Amino acid sequence: MIPSSSIARASDPSHANGTKLVYSFDEGNKEMKDLLGGKGANLSEMTRINIPVPFGFTITTEVCEYYSKHKEYPEDFADQLEDKLDLLQRRMAKKFSDSDNPLLVSVRSGAAVSMPGMMDTVLNLGLNDDTVVALAKKTGNERFAYDSYRRFIQMFGDVVMEVGHENFENAIDKMKEDKGVKDDTELDAEDLKALVEQFKKVVEKEAGRSFPDNPLEQLKLSIEAVFNSWDNDRAKTYRKINNITGLKGTAVNVQAMVFGNMGEDSGTGVAFTRNPSNGDPAFYGEFLMNAQGEDVVAGIRTPVPISQLQEVNASLYDELINIKNKLENHYKDMQDIEFTIEQGKLFLLQTRSGKRTAAAACKIAVDMVEEGMLTKEEALLKVDAGQLGQMLHPQIRKGAEKNVVAKGLPASPGAACGKVVFTADDAMAWATEKNEKVILVRKETSPEDIHGMHCAQGILTSRGGMTSHAAVVCRGMGKCCVAGCADVIVNVSAKKMIIGDLVVNEGDLITLEGGLGEVILGQMEMQEPEMTEDFKTIMKWSDEFRRMKVRTNADTPADCKVALDFGAEGIGLCRTEHMFFDDDRIFLVRKMILAKDADGRVEPLKKLKEFQKDDFVGIFEVMEELPVTVRLLDPPLHEFLPEKAEQIEVLARDLDVSVDDLNTVISNLHEVNPMLGHRGCRLGITYPDIYKMQVQAISEAAMAVSARGKKVNVEIEIPLVGDVREFNYLRDVVKAAIAEYGEEVNFNYKIGTMIETPRACLTADEIAAQAEFFSFGTNDLTQTTFAFSRDDLGKFVNEYIEKGILDRDPMAGIDEKGVGKLMRICVELGRSENSEMEIGICGEQGGDPDSVKYCHKIGLDFVSCSPYRVPIARLAAAQAALKK
Amino acid sequence: MIPSSSIARASDPSHANGTKLVYSFDEGNKEMKDLLGGKGANLSEMTRINIPVPFGFTITTEVCEYYSKHKEYPEDFADQLEDKLDLLQRRMAKKFSDSDNPLLVSVRSGAAVSMPGMMDTVLNLGLNDDTVVALAKKTGNERFAYDSYRRFIQMFGDVVMEVGHENFENAIDKMKEDKGVKDDTELDAEDLKALVEQFKKVVEKEAGRSFPDNPLEQLKLSIEAVFNSWDNDRAKTYRKINNITGLKGTAVNVQAMVFGNMGEDSGTGVAFTRNPSNGDPAFYGEFLMNAQGEDVVAGIRTPVPISQLQEVNASLYDELINIKNKLENHYKDMQDIEFTIEQGKLFLLQTRSGKRTAAAACKIAVDMVEEGMLTKEEALLKVDAGQLGQMLHPQIRKGAEKNVVAKGLPASPGAACGKVVFTADDAMAWATEKNEKVILVRKETSPEDIHGMHCAQGILTSRGGMTSHAAVVCRGMGKCCVAGCADVIVNVSAKKMIIGDLVVNEGDLITLEGGLGEVILGQMEMQEPEMTEDFKTIMKWSDEFRRMKVRTNADTPADCKVALDFGAEGIGLCRTEHMFFDDDRIFLVRKMILAKDADGRVEPLKKLKEFQKDDFVGIFEVMEELPVTVRLLDPPLHEFLPEKAEQIEVLARDLDVSVDDLNTVISNLHEVNPMLGHRGCRLGITYPDIYKMQVQAISEAAMAVSARGKKVNVEIEIPLVGDVREFNYLRDVVKAAIAEYGEEVNFNYKIGTMIETPRACLTADEIAAQAEFFSFGTNDLTQTTFAFSRDDLGKFVNEYIEKGILDRDPMAGIDEKGVGKLMRICVELGRSENSEMEIGICGEQGGDPDSVKYCHKIGLDFVSCSPYRVPIARLAAAQAALKK
Repeated sequence: MIPSSSIARASDPSHANGTKLVYSFDEGNKEMKDLLGGKGANLSEMTRINIPVPFGFTITTEVCEYYSKHKEYPEDFADQLEDKLDLLQRRMAKKFSDSDNPLLVSVRSGAAVSMPGMMDTVLNLGLNDDTVVALAKKTGNERFAYDSYRRFIQMFGDVVMEVGHENFENAIDKMKEDKGVKDDTELDAEDLKALVEQFKKVVEKEAGRSFPDNPLEQLKLSIEAVFNSWDNDRAKTYRKINNITGLKGTAVNVQAMVFGNMGEDSGTGVAFTRNPSNGDPAFYGEFLMNAQGEDVVAGIRTPVPISQLQEVNASLYDELINIKNKLENHYKDMQDIEFTIEQGKLFLLQTRSGKRTAAAACKIAVDMVEEGMLTKEEALLKVDAGQLGQMLHPQIRKGAEKNVVAKGLPASPGAACGKVVFTADDAMAWATEKNEKVILVRKETSPEDIHGMHCAQGILTSRGGMTSHAAVVCRGMGKCCVAGCADVIVNVSAKKMIIGDLVVNEGDLITLEGGLGEVILGQMEMQEPEMTEDFKTIMKWSDEFRRMKVRTNADTPADCKVALDFGAEGIGLCRTEHMFFDDDRIFLVRKMILAKDADGRVEPLKKLKEFQKDDFVGIFEVMEELPVTVRLLDPPLHEFLPEKAEQIEVLARDLDVSVDDLNTVISNLHEVNPMLGHRGCRLGITYPDIYKMQVQAISEAAMAVSARGKKVNVEIEIPLVGDVREFNYLRDVVKAAIAEYGEEVNFNYKIGTMIETPRACLTADEIAAQAEFFSFGTNDLTQTTFAFSRDDLGKFVNEYIEKGILDRDPMAGIDEKGVGKLMRICVELGRSENSEMEIGICGEQGGDPDSVKYCHKIGLDFVSCSPYRVPIARLAAAQAALKK
Repeated sequence: MIPSSSIARASDPSHANGTKLVYSFDEGNKEMKDLLGGKGANLSEMTRINIPVPFGFTITTEVCEYYSKHKEYPEDFADQLEDKLDLLQRRMAKKFSDSDNPLLVSVRSGAAVSMPGMMDTVLNLGLNDDTVVALAKKTGNERFAYDSYRRFIQMFGDVVMEVGHENFENAIDKMKEDKGVKDDTELDAEDLKALVEQFKKVVEKEAGRSFPDNPLEQLKLSIEAVFNSWDNDRAKTYRKINNITGLKGTAVNVQAMVFGNMGEDSGTGVAFTRNPSNGDPAFYGEFLMNAQGEDVVAGIRTPVPISQLQEVNASLYDELINIKNKLENHYKDMQDIEFTIEQGKLFLLQTRSGKRTAAAACKIAVDMVEEGMLTKEEALLKVDAGQLGQMLHPQIRKGAEKNVVAKGLPASPGAACGKVVFTADDAMAWATEKNEKVILVRKETSPEDIHGMHCAQGILTSRGGMTSHAAVVCRGMGKCCVAGCADVIVNVSAKKMIIGDLVVNEGDLITLEGGLGEVILGQMEMQEPEMTEDFKTIMKWSDEFRRMKVRTNADTPADCKVALDFGAEGIGLCRTEHMFFDDDRIFLVRKMILAKDADGRVEPLKKLKEFQKDDFVGIFEVMEELPVTVRLLDPPLHEFLPEKAEQIEVLARDLDVSVDDLNTVISNLHEVNPMLGHRGCRLGITYPDIYKMQVQAISEAAMAVSARGKKVNVEIEIPLVGDVREFNYLRDVVKAAIAEYGEEVNFNYKIGTMIETPRACLTADEIAAQAEFFSFGTNDLTQTTFAFSRDDLGKFVNEYIEKGILDRDPMAGIDEKGVGKLMRICVELGRSENSEMEIGICGEQGGDPDSVKYCHKIGLDFVSCSPYRVPIARLAAAQAALKK
């Protein structure tokens, strides 16, 4: 019986009797993640397919949602909880508080999406001064019983009663010191009994209330703690960083305890059905005999490879291999499992889709197709497109001399270089305020470090294994990590680490090679990543299924080459203004801008044309006949002018004008809101000669390259159009400039526009009747749709995300409700007038997987993104086509 | 026969045979203005209702449109022109080049909208060395014939062959000097014969080709000149200033000549069927015997009042009165007519709706209803809502001592004060570059002066009558004008004017009283206008028919009072930030902004609350129970900070911080694009305490005023919302702040939002589910929809309008295609979720008549505008409802 006072009852009619709030493990299945959380759904699924799982039940995410809102439970909850607890007691033939055969349970959170940032686990719940005696009697192991009891008080105290774990550790340390021993295992049953009493006093002192004896009370408080943890800062930060939205809350799993620390015939382990780092199909994991799971995850004791279980207990190992195979075949995916062996009997405590590196994801997907487990289509959907970026980041240049000063576990591949910092806060401060690249060095990491890990280039830990927090999180982030590097002694307070004789201080440069586990002193030269064969296979398959073309945003022949290697099918955005900043050109640009009239611009424009022509020749040569979209000059002219007094003096001397006059001109060019100012096609309309020069440069380059027998397909793009008459005016300027070459014109060209203003979207039918292509400039479109300036958004965007007003930075991915709706309106209006209209996107968001999928959905013809994101876009485009 | 070489034939199939390109006056009617132009349609209409009109025909605006585009004529045009010319010759029993009875015609332009800026008229066309003899013989008046001939050469030379009229005037002046006479009339037939020869030489010399003898050639060249004048700078400027768009072109009217200068039984005049200045129903006009119309319009000879025609020829006067009455009854509107008396026979040459002052428009509309000529509904549609502003502008304070130094004609009412300038260019330069208020003083004005007149506060001319160019244009613009002020001697080159002993130099201040024709030395104190009874009647009628409410944008009790007098039905926008700038508050505001945290803001916010409370008490007292929409703080905080070094020093001392620290804070607050920055509800979200303070001030003021027995209806408005979650967050802040007063809350309030971002429009359904009202902030919405910054638009907007890319400044009126479409989407989405939603507009455009009509069309509940525009909005709202 659950006392009605302990679980508050509400009378919200929306939760009428009949809503099922608690599910036994034999009532759910893997499709019910939204309701039961990932962990709960999979515990049910495993139960369903007869994999040995300790029995239990799951409290639904809807209860959490209700609790978050009302700070009380739905009306029927207490009764349902009581029913399921009764069932659990019957199944286990154990009871809470039973002095012969007490029921002990674990309580674990579990949302629909894995969230390591949340409160995780309370084990051994149900122990008190009475039941611990029963446990000792039943197991015949008094030491084990009291060790379990002190662990429970410690975990419950920390997690539920908010008593810092250092309080407990101090007490243990003191006892070990008093006894003159080094390891916990050297403490005997009497020591542990004494420790239990000390722990209870610690709780009483730190929490201001006594440790609860009653198992029901313990359970109630643990459930509440899980629900409260849903909205703690750590969890919110985790959701923010990982862009997790739309969840109801967390579920709570209450499960009968099994013990991995009941002696040398017990143990615990975690494993992946394949290698999560490189995808190798061999079973991969670690275990520890006579240990509870927390010992492995926290990295406190270093586990041994799973293959050694064969030697410890061959039949158990075989059973585990069978279960592994069964799970992988059943889920058709690589699984991340947790298991416990209690006195020779194997139990599975968790299975879930395993996090993996991009390289592993590619290999596993390809292997599973070869094994006949997956179709190509299914395999493509298993690879996280966003994660592919990690395969595409630079590595240390091959053959470079490396001063390897330490070696740890190769926890997450890739290379990174940065200045050493020793706390997550420092990592964040250096990265955001000083704009420094940093390497975060810790003994071990915990969810509290997430913000610092996010800001760091790479992570180095001195403790923990391949499944430690640092390793798991970094693989997810696609961030380089070297873990468990025991050679390194970290001194956080002195802000230094010691490796043998070497002292590395805060701010010193190191390089990590995560694929090899190397720590290298100094800054290493990087090189382009080599793509694996599996990656290439995934790309090839992607190309078979995607409908959208993938282009790149590139302004130089070198960028174009990289993008072509990554599979780009053209240039979607070539920004001509970047070409104006070279030392030998900027003076001409300034001369042009500062000219009094069109006559004064003739000479500098003529010279600039030659430079631009060379630029375009280089690009057209590389791109061969692939389409090249060239955007005519876009930024406000004042961006090209000098700002500092000494620069202005030099320029005035060069131009032979007074500093005062020059300052006047510069200040006249100043704008209050340059983003909304005299830029884009507005420049073209007031200075048609500038656009004409650019078109001449494009034409002459195209003619020269064509003359050498290469086809040129150029798309001339007019930026920032808001009214069709802007487009028409400049289209005529462009056409007239090309027409001057008469019959010499030997290349293909289209004239189109970037769609960057809401008004262009709203009048897209008029513009489509005139233009030959559209390309969404979602950076500007996002700015104007929200009235957010990208440059000023930083002042409040974090607070917006923290307060739940925005889900993510709207510059990072297409805001479907607002910006996306305008895009859809634009496509519909544009195609209504010109059904063959080529429409694409070239904003930064063209390489964001969700945005790519949205672009597919609204019928775009291509996406264009930075060279390194081209593979991501290829896969995302295929996934969009497959999901349709 | 028209030679086919003289009228080019094109083979554009879009103008197939069958399109009627030329209409005789008996083939058209007054509804055909788009095709025949206003003048042509009305000449046809008068012909149709048997008013004596010299016969002729009209070439359609479509021919002009075709000619503008192709620089040649439609295929069938030459044949149709020939047919109509044949008909005209038969009707008049006269022929081109006939040596007995030659046909003479006038050629006049005439677009669908009256455009004084275009080429107007060529008279006496058909004269040459042969036909002049026939004319002399037929009229028995050789002097008249040669005078007509020399006038024709002069006019044709000036208008068609681009020979400056000063060339001809110099020749006349020389002849008069040689003969020792003063007036043109003292030149005899022989003199004029000689003058004709001299004029022909002038043409040959200046134009480089000889004056064409052939009447057909003369006609062809005149038609071409009219068509070419459609796109000259003067015409384009006129269309730009008057926001005239969408016309095909001008029509050309070719009409048999009648002569007002055939002797003392001939004459010419212009008249209004009622007084265009004050609306008095008495017939109003001027005439001159023995003169051609150009003498009257150009102000060269001063005409006499129309009533004196009675003495000259009573039966003719009666006939004119009858025609006047017939026209007014037929058109149901006051008419502006031109007539000519040829040897005792009366001909009407033009009728059109007469331009009038706003006061006259009101009186005429009200009188015509009383006379039974119009219904109230019809009468309301006759008054130009935009023009009403002129009745609402300040007058010279009654009873003020006026130093009247000269008196002219009261050409256009209202008072104006400014610095004297003597050229249109100077007027523009002083007004735009120096931001000075100027009075433009000219001998007489011409279409070349339009740009200067537009920039001036008022116009003073030394010559010309009530129907002179200056008078007509100023009445249309609603601008004060004193015309024909003969006491004033204008010396343009010396930049001064002389009035008796007084010399007024450029830059001296004068005041004009246009209703009395007074020129006053110095700057006079102004007072609010007194509204006429007729105006009040129009307003009363407007209120009977309009559906939309009209509110005002006002931030002070004084503004509120003015607006209430103008009929405002509430405040649609009370901007709270203006209240922060008073000397005694700005320090507190700065202290608040510069506080390190919320604690530091407590004290200044507390003090500011008391100030704001007093502000709101004043406003609520004045507005009684009318709704008052209060917008919470909107602008970026840096707007409140000092900019100059000395101000910063003072502030640093006051705040007891270092100048360096203060500068750092100020520079941190700086934004790259403040319009898109940390402002509006974004401030409220990051500084909820500021919004809370404002809500407290509103609540405490409302409670205080309510306690005195006055109802308070306040609408609390959250600015710049782009996502419903912004609104929800701040709605909760507002509600919580009000809830703190518990049961004391004794006033009505709503919480709503300004709709200022495209995203708010696109997600209006979500926002409408939460908000109690919407108010469009079309200033910001226009900026973001176009990606135009109001502050920077000036750099290119004129060029945009000149190049035909924009029709008008998009900040002045709602852009229906873009901004308007977003508004419509917003209303539809909003009402779909919340059908009772109150939706209005409070941007500047809420007082623009066309915008008001658009707001009616899309179903808004109210418009809100500045106090002086309230009457305009009331009438425009009624007109919108009536036109529906």
